[in-house]
Amino acid sequence: MNRRKFFKNGSLLTLGTTVLHPFTGKANTIPFYLQSKNKKAKNIIIVVSDGMSTGTLNMADLYLSRKTGKGSNWLQLYKDNRVNRALMDMASASSMVTDSAAASSSWGGGVRISNGTINVSKSGEVHLPIWQKFKQAGKKAGCVTTVPITHATPAGFCINSKSRNEQEKIAEKYLEQKFDVMMGGGDKYFSSENRKDKKDMYNDFVKSGYEVVKTRDAMFSATNDKPILGVFHYDGLPYSIDRENNKEILQKVPTLAEMTQKAIEAMKDHPNGFVLQVEAGKVDWAAHGNDISGLIYDQVAHDEAIQVAMNFAEQDEETLVIITTDHGNANPGVIYGGKANENFDSIQKYKHTNDWILNGIGRETSVAQIKERIAYANNFELTNEEAKLVLSYYSNLQKEEGLYNPKNLPFKVLAEIQKQHNSVGWISMQHSADYVELAMYGPGSSLLKPFIKNTDLHYLMLEAAEVENTF
Amino acid sequence: MNRRKFFKNGSLLTLGTTVLHPFTGKANTIPFYLQSKNKKAKNIIIVVSDGMSTGTLNMADLYLSRKTGKGSNWLQLYKDNRVNRALMDMASASSMVTDSAAASSSWGGGVRISNGTINVSKSGEVHLPIWQKFKQAGKKAGCVTTVPITHATPAGFCINSKSRNEQEKIAEKYLEQKFDVMMGGGDKYFSSENRKDKKDMYNDFVKSGYEVVKTRDAMFSATNDKPILGVFHYDGLPYSIDRENNKEILQKVPTLAEMTQKAIEAMKDHPNGFVLQVEAGKVDWAAHGNDISGLIYDQVAHDEAIQVAMNFAEQDEETLVIITTDHGNANPGVIYGGKANENFDSIQKYKHTNDWILNGIGRETSVAQIKERIAYANNFELTNEEAKLVLSYYSNLQKEEGLYNPKNLPFKVLAEIQKQHNSVGWISMQHSADYVELAMYGPGSSLLKPFIKNTDLHYLMLEAAEVENTF
Ligand SMILES: [Zn+2]
Ligand SMILES: [Zn+2]
Repeated sequence: MNRRKFFKNGSLLTLGTTVLHPFTGKANTIPFYLQSKNKKAKNIIIVVSDGMSTGTLNMADLYLSRKTGKGSNWLQLYKDNRVNRALMDMASASSMVTDSAAASSSWGGGVRISNGTINVSKSGEVHLPIWQKFKQAGKKAGCVTTVPITHATPAGFCINSKSRNEQEKIAEKYLEQKFDVMMGGGDKYFSSENRKDKKDMYNDFVKSGYEVVKTRDAMFSATNDKPILGVFHYDGLPYSIDRENNKEILQKVPTLAEMTQKAIEAMKDHPNGFVLQVEAGKVDWAAHGNDISGLIYDQVAHDEAIQVAMNFAEQDEETLVIITTDHGNANPGVIYGGKANENFDSIQKYKHTNDWILNGIGRETSVAQIKERIAYANNFELTNEEAKLVLSYYSNLQKEEGLYNPKNLPFKVLAEIQKQHNSVGWISMQHSADYVELAMYGPGSSLLKPFIKNTDLHYLMLEAAEVENTF
Repeated sequence: MNRRKFFKNGSLLTLGTTVLHPFTGKANTIPFYLQSKNKKAKNIIIVVSDGMSTGTLNMADLYLSRKTGKGSNWLQLYKDNRVNRALMDMASASSMVTDSAAASSSWGGGVRISNGTINVSKSGEVHLPIWQKFKQAGKKAGCVTTVPITHATPAGFCINSKSRNEQEKIAEKYLEQKFDVMMGGGDKYFSSENRKDKKDMYNDFVKSGYEVVKTRDAMFSATNDKPILGVFHYDGLPYSIDRENNKEILQKVPTLAEMTQKAIEAMKDHPNGFVLQVEAGKVDWAAHGNDISGLIYDQVAHDEAIQVAMNFAEQDEETLVIITTDHGNANPGVIYGGKANENFDSIQKYKHTNDWILNGIGRETSVAQIKERIAYANNFELTNEEAKLVLSYYSNLQKEEGLYNPKNLPFKVLAEIQKQHNSVGWISMQHSADYVELAMYGPGSSLLKPFIKNTDLHYLMLEAAEVENTF
């Protein structure tokens, strides 16, 4: 093999501009991120996959590569040398393993606080959330997510709360701050039917000048002249793969990429710019359930939202795009074995999540029905013993609000059975302490060092936008 | 909080040189790796942690940070913005999950081949190993490792073999090529007592002009005028933490950092330069055993070897240092929980590996003795049921060559018991498909893109050293 081959196939050639080195006169290659015009970031879009272990990023990329011949948009940015990368230490004040509330607060408030709280320290000190800082600086600010819009990750950029669980209250706090686009799930925290206090928050938002949308079509037709509240489901939005295989949901619920597109359109013409948080929140839920098709397809949904953000940023040239996750979860990975390739590829045939499978089983289900359901959803056959094992978990279960408590369903057992067929393993059903992957594109991205603390990101966003932190 | 605070604490300040941007006149920061003098790499040192999942790097860094207040040398290079980083796809020709032989061959031969083979394709085509290319270009070449020096990772840079298992034969192939420094474990593949063919390879190496050393002291006193073969143990070298707690081994067996130091000293004055592979091979063995103290302390040993390589490269200024791993293994991580911090910190009190614990138990051991042994090694108390469970695995075991076959010992059971005390989980006892972390310092490092294939590294090393690939 000839040396020229190395250059011809170009696999190592960086796509940055080749410039002459000032001292040696030799050619050197400067990555794209160092070539950005060094102007300030008028807009910031942060695209978060919640609870994405490195293995999740890896598996979504492997999945796409092997299915379509083209990997993820996220890693394509690496292959094209277009972003600046770092590892980020997400520890909270209370633990090396953070929860989503403390994680988002570290970025949102610039201070490490205890797990479970949102921008309030143990001492009671409150930290002004970064989307409020940007609002005060004259920008529009919004969040879109696949979990309730009152959930920890959006809340951490927007409000203060001693507990992440006070989601009805968080909905009210959003209204007080008048954020410009807030969309996701969580009807249970907005509608008079479902709120414990029976207050009709939709009505309050409308009275305050919002356009409230509850379907995909309504979202697309919403005017960009008013702030928008979009709530498309009772709790978290359905998983991407379940949505794909359910016509009713497909019509009613937008994808994360579609919400991202609408949010950008609604805010992009604002003279002082905008800030937008995009969260693939159910990647975390899927990891908690060791739910492989929930995980991979929702990570792919996150990846499609990255593309929407990048398409805008490339044209706009004044937008900092931040791509990251708030912590690992369950550290999944493809395990060595003679059939690793073929097993992993079998996930391409999965039609539904484990969430869908297990919520469709009950005490009255027969062993044959369980086998049929899993054969339909996963394209493999359970043994009678495995089906009986799954069924045994339902004998004492009670339905709550029409659904079983997911904590009581045999997610772990099902993942263990699937592992023999798909070669994917998990360390637990919980968050992990792994340092997380972080990438940036556009003005401000050269501020990033290869290893940072979570709280550094707060100051980086302010600095990139040249917003004085005098709050 | 004031914006100045952000700059004063300097947590985001890159340590690169601040230069004026050519177009805008604004300050911009160029990372160190783009400032290297763009000259060729006279020397290359590649420091490999075998089977290091991202979680292993993370846990070693957390361990050091929490114990000493200073994290790992590897991540300090990131904090100081001194290296260029990438993710690397290590897939082999036969599987998305590689073994060490195909992994090392992808770097060593520049071609993806099937698991289990060393620089020989399925078709029979042989690929000239990169250390032979560098030898032909006039450089000295060597390998040091904590596993047998005939093991897959060094072999993949040095020789061709249809099977990684032919380690006696690999020892002979090393002699044919006359590599300059080869040190590690593996007496069983060199001594007439232990080789199956009873050939005395040590004698052959001596006759061929080598200095053969078998102890740490002999290694330090070896002349740098002759090639060196160092073999310090029957099989792999003892784990770092077991070595620390055993005076005899401590005296006889050098650390990976010490072998690295000696190898550099032995080759550094060669006019045409040198290439050196340094492997922390037992990180992989520990991961296969879900053996947390084996894993962390051997990863720390790898980290100390990084420092030795960096100390030399910083002074030398003509050395490319490559820091990476060949694949993930078991994807360990610290799991969320109220006691995650205190549990993880309990590992600081571990005195021995699980390998040491389990090899000291036999059929005749009592429940009380098992509890005592683990209390001594891990500083916690097993329940009687747990101790009985461990013991039950020994009832049918036979010792082989004075040791149990590690495959039959209850490593998984012990790791499951420990998990409750140390909060560390594992996905399996096998390699994973994760893309791996890769960092480079020095001349040639700016050739690296943020995402590469394993085979790209072969051509990058040749290119950095300006060695024509005309073989
Ligand atoms: Zn989270
Ligand atoms: Zn390996």
